[in-house]
Amino acid sequence: MYFMEVTMREASPISDNKKMVVYKRRQISKEINIGIIGFGTIGSAVVKAIKKNESIFRKRTGWHINLVAVCDKDPKVFRNSKLSRDIIKRKANDVINDPQVDIVIELIGGIHPAKEIIKGALANKKYVITANKALLADHKSELFKVAKDNNVGLYYEASVMAGVPLIKVLREGLIANRIKSMWGIINGTSNYILSNMYNKGASFKDSLKEAKNKGFAERNYSLDIEGIDSAHKLAVISSLAFGQDIRLEDISIEGIMSISSADIMYAKELGYNIKLLAIAKNLKDSIEVRVHPTLLPKSHILSNVDGVYNAIYIQSDLADDLFLYGQGAGGEPTSSGIISDIANIISDMQKTEDKGSDILINSLKKKRIKGLDEIESCFYIRFMAIDNPGVLAKISGILGKYKISIASVVQKAKSMQKAVPIIMLIHKTKEYSLKKALSEIDKLSVIKARSVAIKIEQEKEL
Amino acid sequence: MYFMEVTMREASPISDNKKMVVYKRRQISKEINIGIIGFGTIGSAVVKAIKKNESIFRKRTGWHINLVAVCDKDPKVFRNSKLSRDIIKRKANDVINDPQVDIVIELIGGIHPAKEIIKGALANKKYVITANKALLADHKSELFKVAKDNNVGLYYEASVMAGVPLIKVLREGLIANRIKSMWGIINGTSNYILSNMYNKGASFKDSLKEAKNKGFAERNYSLDIEGIDSAHKLAVISSLAFGQDIRLEDISIEGIMSISSADIMYAKELGYNIKLLAIAKNLKDSIEVRVHPTLLPKSHILSNVDGVYNAIYIQSDLADDLFLYGQGAGGEPTSSGIISDIANIISDMQKTEDKGSDILINSLKKKRIKGLDEIESCFYIRFMAIDNPGVLAKISGILGKYKISIASVVQKAKSMQKAVPIIMLIHKTKEYSLKKALSEIDKLSVIKARSVAIKIEQEKEL
Repeated sequence: MYFMEVTMREASPISDNKKMVVYKRRQISKEINIGIIGFGTIGSAVVKAIKKNESIFRKRTGWHINLVAVCDKDPKVFRNSKLSRDIIKRKANDVINDPQVDIVIELIGGIHPAKEIIKGALANKKYVITANKALLADHKSELFKVAKDNNVGLYYEASVMAGVPLIKVLREGLIANRIKSMWGIINGTSNYILSNMYNKGASFKDSLKEAKNKGFAERNYSLDIEGIDSAHKLAVISSLAFGQDIRLEDISIEGIMSISSADIMYAKELGYNIKLLAIAKNLKDSIEVRVHPTLLPKSHILSNVDGVYNAIYIQSDLADDLFLYGQGAGGEPTSSGIISDIANIISDMQKTEDKGSDILINSLKKKRIKGLDEIESCFYIRFMAIDNPGVLAKISGILGKYKISIASVVQKAKSMQKAVPIIMLIHKTKEYSLKKALSEIDKLSVIKARSVAIKIEQEKEL
Repeated sequence: MYFMEVTMREASPISDNKKMVVYKRRQISKEINIGIIGFGTIGSAVVKAIKKNESIFRKRTGWHINLVAVCDKDPKVFRNSKLSRDIIKRKANDVINDPQVDIVIELIGGIHPAKEIIKGALANKKYVITANKALLADHKSELFKVAKDNNVGLYYEASVMAGVPLIKVLREGLIANRIKSMWGIINGTSNYILSNMYNKGASFKDSLKEAKNKGFAERNYSLDIEGIDSAHKLAVISSLAFGQDIRLEDISIEGIMSISSADIMYAKELGYNIKLLAIAKNLKDSIEVRVHPTLLPKSHILSNVDGVYNAIYIQSDLADDLFLYGQGAGGEPTSSGIISDIANIISDMQKTEDKGSDILINSLKKKRIKGLDEIESCFYIRFMAIDNPGVLAKISGILGKYKISIASVVQKAKSMQKAVPIIMLIHKTKEYSLKKALSEIDKLSVIKARSVAIKIEQEKEL
């Protein structure tokens, strides 16, 4: 870091490896030099946001953010950027090796070469900011080790829930708490689709199309609708909350592709909404982490999170219930998170010890990840069956064999010719048993389509 | 601060005025020494919480919190506390003058002697934590000056919304943002009363009684129902958000005492809930700060905040919408906030500069506080009038004279004998004009009770 060219009154060396000078003037202003790798939607938004709120950031921190290097694999992105030619670099290495750069902001996404870039920057003793949840999900413990070995930090506020300072809340706001559980709507695209289906009765296909048209679904939307993006983010926040390296492979994941508008309507009639939830529970001897579509009572606060908004419900032992809601994506909200990381770094780099912020610092003891087979849930089930007096007896007979107990049954229509939907709500059961029962039921001649099973979370558990 | 008595392997002096030693052992653990003044509900809960989650705090911060001094004006409170006799002091001065104490936690509330205690502690170069919003509301700029002059800090996370880390979110999470507006339900007692009236149709009196019976209303509940407590908190958070010393006298305050169950029911029929909102708006040339009962559309997220819960809706320029919800009071949630302040202090005291966290650090330019006369609102009005063909003409004639335009009128009953309620929704108007019109209307012989006017916030404005 270097200071602005203002009249020097007093100078004294403070840091060991950096030229640090203290200026006394009306406004003492210091500069932190950043380099940005990746100048897409987010990268350009960060530059704009820094410029827009420069005066307020300087007033609050005493520091000025100075963009000294930026690169993108596509040189065309800089055409209308008004950035000075001097700071546009050809390669990521030009940024991470630039001795001027204090902070490297990685915004290219994906695993490679993002991982090598971040490791290289950390090895060069640069602080690093990333919004790359896919990379963090599986490589965080390796990356944080490199950061620690080099006495710098890796910051990731914008990797989950963009404009909502969830990472800061978990790491610092709830620092006194044992975090017991979290239920989050942390993927805007899938929430937009499900909200559209719920509010307008639209099909999954049409809702996905609308999300694409409105720019809410990215080119590679499969990560969103398959629940992978939510799982990446859940890996990040559950690792931070529970202090243990939770990776993608640890998380049971179900997407929303098989949710039909019919199921949403039946759920609605029963008093439920369907949401893609990321759930993490810190149990006595184990940890439960899963992403799946979930029936939630309409009255639950998460049921009312509409459109592209993100939200999370956190239960901890002292603060008790905490609910956060806001913008989960977009250039400006993501910039808000990234710039708050810059402020954190400015603060941390002044410290004499405990620099950086290890994601796994909370670990007490490593717990076993609970297998999907052990997890018990209530279920919504839809059978498509011939409307025939013996059909319910056959279905409930098989369920009974697997010790699955029925809470309620509704038959949605009457028809002698074609299959009609039979909706069942099932008491708590192991998913493993249910799957076996359903595969047996689906072989019955009266069953005309594959049965649908969706987990239910009851208000009292939340 | 002193270190725990563990085997010393390596020692080196770091700080100027404190004995600081670095131990290398399996678990490097340092001690921060706290002194607590006031051992009531909160004070004892803090001690319990520190003990309960000692291991997790140490793991996360590397520090152990050591209670070295505590006092209360009532010695009986220590009877069942199991605290060591050595640390129980007779007077606050014994705590703030104790050279062992690094952090003083003020939990006695009120203005005097809390103010003198905090100033004394700061002058002794102790870091101070307080949950005292009444004191901060009017004396914060003086107190933060003393902190700054002594190169220490004053921390107040638990002063607003207890278990919700709102102060951290405003100060650090949204550090890149211009905060535009906030709408908060920040007093649990009044929200409990209004929720009870809304959900059960109960009277104000019965609801207050129930709040008292359940321990939600303190002995001195007048601060809660008169809106003063909300205003104290609004003074704290609007000063932090807007960077300007906003005091109680700047805030227009209306309590909930005059809200009748009838008005709640009429509002409900019209699609609204009534909530006591604390509202702060950062306008172009002025700041608007007010606390009053408000009609909110039922669909608004704040309408669904029930019982003693607190919540706040924040709009800022980058992060956009942000909503926080959680426990606004109680021993454990308040402890969560206080212990997070301890962690903040541990971090800040290691810094080479910018120690402490000034509440007014965000100031750009001082803005004028908007007078109540200038504020425009939509209104719900209830007249109690004789059911007589000419009455509406008379009322609307007077409203028209003051250029007040009626959005809709509903007469709630028919009776030739006694007065019936007439409900009007009024388009945006200045409160000043409305008050003049109402005082003129109330003089009409057909009007049989004082007219009621409650502000409305429309969804689109939120």
